[in-house]
Amino acid sequence: MQTLNLDHDKNAVVILDQTQLPQKIKYLHLTDINQVWTAIRELKVRGAPAIGVAAAMGLYIEMKNRATMEGLEFEAACKYLSSSRPTAVNLDWALTEMTKAYEANKNKSRPEIISALRNAAEKIASDDSDICRSIGLHGLPLLKDGMGILTHCNAGALAATKYGTALAPIYIAHEQDLNLRVYADETRPVLQGARLTAFELNQAGVDVTLICDNMAATVMSKGLVDIVFVGCDRVAANGDTANKIGTHGVAILAKHFGIPFYVCAPLSTIDMSSATGSDIIIEERDPAEITDLWYHEPMAPAGVKVFNPAFDVTPTELITGFITENGILQPPFKSHKTA
Amino acid sequence: MQTLNLDHDKNAVVILDQTQLPQKIKYLHLTDINQVWTAIRELKVRGAPAIGVAAAMGLYIEMKNRATMEGLEFEAACKYLSSSRPTAVNLDWALTEMTKAYEANKNKSRPEIISALRNAAEKIASDDSDICRSIGLHGLPLLKDGMGILTHCNAGALAATKYGTALAPIYIAHEQDLNLRVYADETRPVLQGARLTAFELNQAGVDVTLICDNMAATVMSKGLVDIVFVGCDRVAANGDTANKIGTHGVAILAKHFGIPFYVCAPLSTIDMSSATGSDIIIEERDPAEITDLWYHEPMAPAGVKVFNPAFDVTPTELITGFITENGILQPPFKSHKTA
Repeated sequence: MQTLNLDHDKNAVVILDQTQLPQKIKYLHLTDINQVWTAIRELKVRGAPAIGVAAAMGLYIEMKNRATMEGLEFEAACKYLSSSRPTAVNLDWALTEMTKAYEANKNKSRPEIISALRNAAEKIASDDSDICRSIGLHGLPLLKDGMGILTHCNAGALAATKYGTALAPIYIAHEQDLNLRVYADETRPVLQGARLTAFELNQAGVDVTLICDNMAATVMSKGLVDIVFVGCDRVAANGDTANKIGTHGVAILAKHFGIPFYVCAPLSTIDMSSATGSDIIIEERDPAEITDLWYHEPMAPAGVKVFNPAFDVTPTELITGFITENGILQPPFKSHKTA
Repeated sequence: MQTLNLDHDKNAVVILDQTQLPQKIKYLHLTDINQVWTAIRELKVRGAPAIGVAAAMGLYIEMKNRATMEGLEFEAACKYLSSSRPTAVNLDWALTEMTKAYEANKNKSRPEIISALRNAAEKIASDDSDICRSIGLHGLPLLKDGMGILTHCNAGALAATKYGTALAPIYIAHEQDLNLRVYADETRPVLQGARLTAFELNQAGVDVTLICDNMAATVMSKGLVDIVFVGCDRVAANGDTANKIGTHGVAILAKHFGIPFYVCAPLSTIDMSSATGSDIIIEERDPAEITDLWYHEPMAPAGVKVFNPAFDVTPTELITGFITENGILQPPFKSHKTA
């Protein structure tokens, strides 16, 4: 199963339609930048590294399938693809790499330009695999047999060409027969954790347990999580990190429980033009994702392990006061009628 | 719209079926304890105060509709109702109140016993309204015009006979024309926040914005939340508080942001027999609630305000390290190839 690749016979970017997972494995053939734009926008291909690769491949295919594409058109095509999603920096980074290849070859023959763009797109894709494997190898020493890892959203193989970022150390540890337990936040509203992370780890034979986002504190409080790995969409120069909604909360919880919280990222994700997180544009999406996006079929792989506690216990030191019919009370309570 | 009450003509406990909200307003007539047990178990009536009242009313209706009910049968009926859900202490508390009424009258005539149970059940219900109003009045001074309040799950009018607990100060402030902004966590997996809290606050004309559970940190980080109010199912003597899954996480977030976090509770929720939270039994529910419980219709009231950011920014100080293809790095970053 491959997240995305080029079909040179059909002159198409082939993507695994991630909106159909885990129920259907369906590939889409995209033959122009409009189709690529829509596929990125509609999350058919998603994950910061993967959308960079998709945009680069899309640009090459567009150039190849069009009769002509001059400098201004090339620039417009890059701008258009860049507008598909605003937060992940990899998209712009990949388009810049493609622009460099175009600029270096624009005075050559059309076949030479096309060939240069193909090489650039393929290099972005193969570099991504290499980078993700490196990330995995660098993260590996943090893992020991029997450890529990919590992850949020999907920064796995489905978010990149291979391995992914946050899941890369886990895949490499798994190749080396370490036993790990992964807790996957389902990641509302679009459920990338349930639909994608639980799916791909299950397929790879990694022990994964699906939880709702609001169960992370409980799983951590039980001592089940030794480390947190997440991916990211853009990192500011000071280290502030934009990633799927909910990551910030997971990081606060990890800090509270003294659990190390690692961001797994290609260096291309670091955006030196953003000094801090407040410089990062956060995409706000359709309210219907929250109110109406209820699927008519199971949204997790069949048989996936699930932890579904209905309640949790908030330790007393986190509670400012108890508002009761007898006023605002402070524990410890001496009796029912206390204070 | 009433959460639950007694229909004396039909000898039934009448409940608003909360599993049908917000799409359908449908009342159920329950005429024996089996039906009451199932309604509690299946969350058709839920919320700690409401299930206590439902069980008390159910016990009275069972006694009235049966030809006979002797002491051992009464005890068995209490045990049975108590088994419907394990975490909320109000259920046992209400059944104990009913048992006291039964014990005090068991040697009297059958009509007198029935009448005593009716009085006890009605007192539990009317006390609940009074208590919730008191909770609201005690919480009111914490609220000022323009404040933002975050709440989790549903501890509103639908969780009690009237006012609710966590929403009681908000309803009373609204009666007094304070402008408040409420952020309602949707509360996966069963979505009490989306289906019930957003619904009942919308109906009452209170400004409510629905968010996914994992968006609470973002809303707090933007300074939109001045105070957190939650309900609870059982409070240990030391103040550790069992409430809907996710509450613990919200409390950690509130502490991190310096936001006061209040539990709104009738004193009957304090369980002196639990020294700390570790003595509280946490109900674990069907995995299908997480994997399969996807509705075929919108799960929030039409037109409800929604905040749907796709990403959030995790501040650098919460991140232990960045795992990149160049190794594990620490910010601030000097360049893309940093360290």
